[in-house]
Amino acid sequence: MDRKEFRDLVTPAEAREAIHSLELGAGTERVPLAEARGRILASRIDAELDVPGFDRSSMDGYALRARDSFGADEAEPARLAVVGEVHAGVEPDVEVGAGEAVEISTGAVMPPGADAMVPVERTEHVEPGSADRAGGETAGADRRAVLVRTSVAPGDNVMFAGADVAAGERALGPGTRLTPREIGLLSALGVEEVPVRAPPRVGIVSTGDELVRPGEKLTSARGEIYDVNSHAIAAGVEDAGGEAVVYPHVGDDMVEMERVLRQAAGECELVLSSGSTSASAVDVIYRVIEERGELLVHGVSVKPGKPMLVGRLADSAYVGLPGYPVSAMMVFRTFVAPVIREAAGLPTAATASREGSMAVRERSEEGRLRLMPAGLVEGGDGETLVYPVDKGSGATTSLAEADGVVVIDPDTDYLDAGEAVTVELFSPDVRPPTLVGVGEDDPTLNRLLDRLENPRYLAVGSRPGLRRLREGVPDVAAVAGPLGREVDAEPVGRWSREWGLVVPADDPRRIEGLDDLVDRELRLVNRTTDSGLRTSLGLAVADLATERGTSRESLVEAIDGFEFGLRAHESPARKVLAGDADAGLGIRETADRLGMGFVPLGEQELRVLADPDRLGKPGVAELLAVLEDSPDVEVD
Amino acid sequence: MDRKEFRDLVTPAEAREAIHSLELGAGTERVPLAEARGRILASRIDAELDVPGFDRSSMDGYALRARDSFGADEAEPARLAVVGEVHAGVEPDVEVGAGEAVEISTGAVMPPGADAMVPVERTEHVEPGSADRAGGETAGADRRAVLVRTSVAPGDNVMFAGADVAAGERALGPGTRLTPREIGLLSALGVEEVPVRAPPRVGIVSTGDELVRPGEKLTSARGEIYDVNSHAIAAGVEDAGGEAVVYPHVGDDMVEMERVLRQAAGECELVLSSGSTSASAVDVIYRVIEERGELLVHGVSVKPGKPMLVGRLADSAYVGLPGYPVSAMMVFRTFVAPVIREAAGLPTAATASREGSMAVRERSEEGRLRLMPAGLVEGGDGETLVYPVDKGSGATTSLAEADGVVVIDPDTDYLDAGEAVTVELFSPDVRPPTLVGVGEDDPTLNRLLDRLENPRYLAVGSRPGLRRLREGVPDVAAVAGPLGREVDAEPVGRWSREWGLVVPADDPRRIEGLDDLVDRELRLVNRTTDSGLRTSLGLAVADLATERGTSRESLVEAIDGFEFGLRAHESPARKVLAGDADAGLGIRETADRLGMGFVPLGEQELRVLADPDRLGKPGVAELLAVLEDSPDVEVD
Repeated sequence: MDRKEFRDLVTPAEAREAIHSLELGAGTERVPLAEARGRILASRIDAELDVPGFDRSSMDGYALRARDSFGADEAEPARLAVVGEVHAGVEPDVEVGAGEAVEISTGAVMPPGADAMVPVERTEHVEPGSADRAGGETAGADRRAVLVRTSVAPGDNVMFAGADVAAGERALGPGTRLTPREIGLLSALGVEEVPVRAPPRVGIVSTGDELVRPGEKLTSARGEIYDVNSHAIAAGVEDAGGEAVVYPHVGDDMVEMERVLRQAAGECELVLSSGSTSASAVDVIYRVIEERGELLVHGVSVKPGKPMLVGRLADSAYVGLPGYPVSAMMVFRTFVAPVIREAAGLPTAATASREGSMAVRERSEEGRLRLMPAGLVEGGDGETLVYPVDKGSGATTSLAEADGVVVIDPDTDYLDAGEAVTVELFSPDVRPPTLVGVGEDDPTLNRLLDRLENPRYLAVGSRPGLRRLREGVPDVAAVAGPLGREVDAEPVGRWSREWGLVVPADDPRRIEGLDDLVDRELRLVNRTTDSGLRTSLGLAVADLATERGTSRESLVEAIDGFEFGLRAHESPARKVLAGDADAGLGIRETADRLGMGFVPLGEQELRVLADPDRLGKPGVAELLAVLEDSPDVEVD
Repeated sequence: MDRKEFRDLVTPAEAREAIHSLELGAGTERVPLAEARGRILASRIDAELDVPGFDRSSMDGYALRARDSFGADEAEPARLAVVGEVHAGVEPDVEVGAGEAVEISTGAVMPPGADAMVPVERTEHVEPGSADRAGGETAGADRRAVLVRTSVAPGDNVMFAGADVAAGERALGPGTRLTPREIGLLSALGVEEVPVRAPPRVGIVSTGDELVRPGEKLTSARGEIYDVNSHAIAAGVEDAGGEAVVYPHVGDDMVEMERVLRQAAGECELVLSSGSTSASAVDVIYRVIEERGELLVHGVSVKPGKPMLVGRLADSAYVGLPGYPVSAMMVFRTFVAPVIREAAGLPTAATASREGSMAVRERSEEGRLRLMPAGLVEGGDGETLVYPVDKGSGATTSLAEADGVVVIDPDTDYLDAGEAVTVELFSPDVRPPTLVGVGEDDPTLNRLLDRLENPRYLAVGSRPGLRRLREGVPDVAAVAGPLGREVDAEPVGRWSREWGLVVPADDPRRIEGLDDLVDRELRLVNRTTDSGLRTSLGLAVADLATERGTSRESLVEAIDGFEFGLRAHESPARKVLAGDADAGLGIRETADRLGMGFVPLGEQELRVLADPDRLGKPGVAELLAVLEDSPDVEVD
């Protein structure tokens, strides 16, 4: 491939401008009111009718001619003949003349002749035949009558036609997002179908021979991995108000790739590819763009995202995203989501970004805009702390840790601890964790975490966990086994777990203890030195060496597999299960869970240590309450 | 009806407790990952596999045994035989022995035998037959080889199996809301279907004989109105994470009402009725509750919402809401939405409430909790001002003006201007308006408003508009015609409009001017005194009186219909259209729009006046720019 194009990098501002210039024209559509929630009104809605459409009684009482009540009060009520009644939803069949009243219920049509109404509380009903207490007269006692004990003015207690909404009034403007109250207003106007912006269709094409769609079978021996970007970017597109169309991902079959790209371009307003970094894949994209479109940007001065492509594919806009998930999400969030939101008419969400201050100092390379994946944690004083997440951009777990992206200016060579930064969240729905923990992976701990509101726990192992706690980012660390040196941390809870060797269910090698590993030809799968289990195993080997009067090193050398460890907590057991080894370092609960045998070697303590400055924050208080409430846990 | 139940009102806290005790148990369901965005995880997801599932090359380069590179540097590169290549997505068919290397691409499986890789940038490819520049030797020049110019340690540039996510690790906890990044993580784990909380089903039954579903024909003569609550509350239910089921609304047919209530109770976790305030409707609800359930609350000390019912209908929870739309939304938002959110597992939205300070002083009745409908407006200094919205709870336009509800404590007898309050928004998606305007309804103004981002305009008429502007709530007022007294406001734009009499298209009565109204038997429909048109008409009548040497009053009396006016801007024209009158006061644009005739009587100026303190706020600046940009408008 000819990579010379990338020598001519454009600035991020130029890239934004290019993407903006693509003008994703989304159309409009009509949807029933019942499905309109959250949609954006495409054009103004004027009231086509008066609300109410008639003069309406505001209360239960009597409709009358106001002048017939003039001068009436408690002492001298006016007596009116009741000539009928009107209920809500029924057309009045009576007219109100001088000296007359009509019984009326809330919401009913004012009968002709009446110009006001008096609430029932200010009246007294007079049954036919009863004496008229107002004046003692008996004239008219054969008719129903009402005593009106207050004077009302014309219009009193009447809601006139159009008083609420008047026909011809501008009710809702174009671009209005339809929330329940707008839907209520449209209901009042009798609107059953509304013109709304159609979501821009965004096609997503992941590229890579190694990708497998989630749910399908993965063959790790071939280096296959699950396709992360298709679903994650699709969800991002929907967050931004677009309609995501996920196409089959394509590998090195160039005919197929070209076919899929052309199909996507024909069906969507915008096509996003991800991971098209292999020379041959980029070749195809170039060819399709050059034959049927226009290439506007080939390379942007941003890290990550340098090989970003921007152009037109047939009649569709096209942007090429990086293949690594966190990089793809950052570039999407920073460069692409805003134009989708705009095309969808969706306003920038109030929760789309968050202000905070750097928890640690972070260096940045000068000269290129940097997109830094960032996590959020609440500090001891309730302030939002922002920390860089960097597990290597190939790691999907950065996704679990990163809440968004901090865009760092090319002129900035470092962000100081305490410096104010803005985190553009990956979704307006991202909620910063209530508690951030790091350390050992442990089943008891996992169950405790399940009871917390919104915890983030990174099973980095005991040693890295302690290191991170010292650096001041997490609230708590969970550490297993004996530790080399103590940290300035508050122990808040502890429990013990049984560790040993996980062996096949039928235990064909009859392993009984550590001696067997040293003395027999058995293959062990160990954990990395980050793990507390590895530390306990190392100490047990040292004890055995002392017991035998030999050196720890000689025993270690005698154990096949001791030096090389796996980071993953269940991986040794799974290697045994797969027949690749005879014993794996692990805990009893793992063996039980996987239906395997277990050779206990000891008990080790798992301790939860908290940053003393964070003891007062709500998420830590919630953890302390859960620890307190757990019979397995001894609270410090 | 026996209303004695309401004498025994419970406190709002007791009502909340009762609703809470109903325990809307929502179930769980499995959804495909592609449809999981926004859903709430029902149970913990652990990693079922290592990510990556194999030792993976992090870069393009060469896989090798690290010890073969020991000591190598730029000056003294190590020369290794290249024995094959491995690409991403392909199983290695080669093993790396001592002194050997394999070309490897990013993401490919590390071949057996290799324990590290060196990036291509630190190597030099040696073609078969070329001289070995490192040592000048020619041995092995017939094979492909690579010069390695750096020393690597075991594990360098390799991402080990499980290094990203380890099998058995806790990946996502129960209650996690699935945003794009969680969907990415689930993709990486190969999860294609996720267990999520099923939304609680909420049945909605509007009651009232006068209700008509939007889209159906309305007969105003019968006092029919469109049903607002069904769709508005349904949208509120969905906002809160529930599934709304709208049942046909029921009127006074008690058999049908009972049938619908029982059906809803059988199909939903919660049934909400609204407007069941008529004696007979409440009777039926009581009976159904008493026969098949339990009545927990009958009446709450809250305004509005006093007749609220809480209980069980068969196996379903039941809450009765007020019938008036704004009251129903406030009671729903305050008492019901929180339990739906909880059942759905949806966290309280960060944007669900807003802090502000009262724009005006507001009295409150002591002794009852008050739900005050409130609007938001940004003040001159960017602060959020909160003002009470009260058009009467029967008015649906309160929906257009109210952004949410302020809950006022029973002990509070007034909120002072400037006092801090919290507005619970009707939806997390409610956006406070960028500009609040009041005053005359005018087609030119409506077109200008369409060009603004998120304006709120209340067509209350010129005089009430001016009054409101003086009170300090709106940013601008639009006023028509001559005004009695000036206000301390900044004129920012003006245009003129032609006003006169709207007459039938064929003008059967041949009306030529104001004289005809005075001298002939013609029926006029006027506007209310709030309207600037009415002011202009009044002045024209006064001029005619002067001209004729008579009094204004005598002319007014001679015009049939002068004294009684309609509030609605198009209503006079529509009355003429309906054949109820001969001429209606209006503007030429209305006549044109409705295809009617027009008798011009004059031109009147429409002026936009701004609150001087608000001139700097962005929404006002946007309006000024639009005024500036409009050829019709003369800018002050």
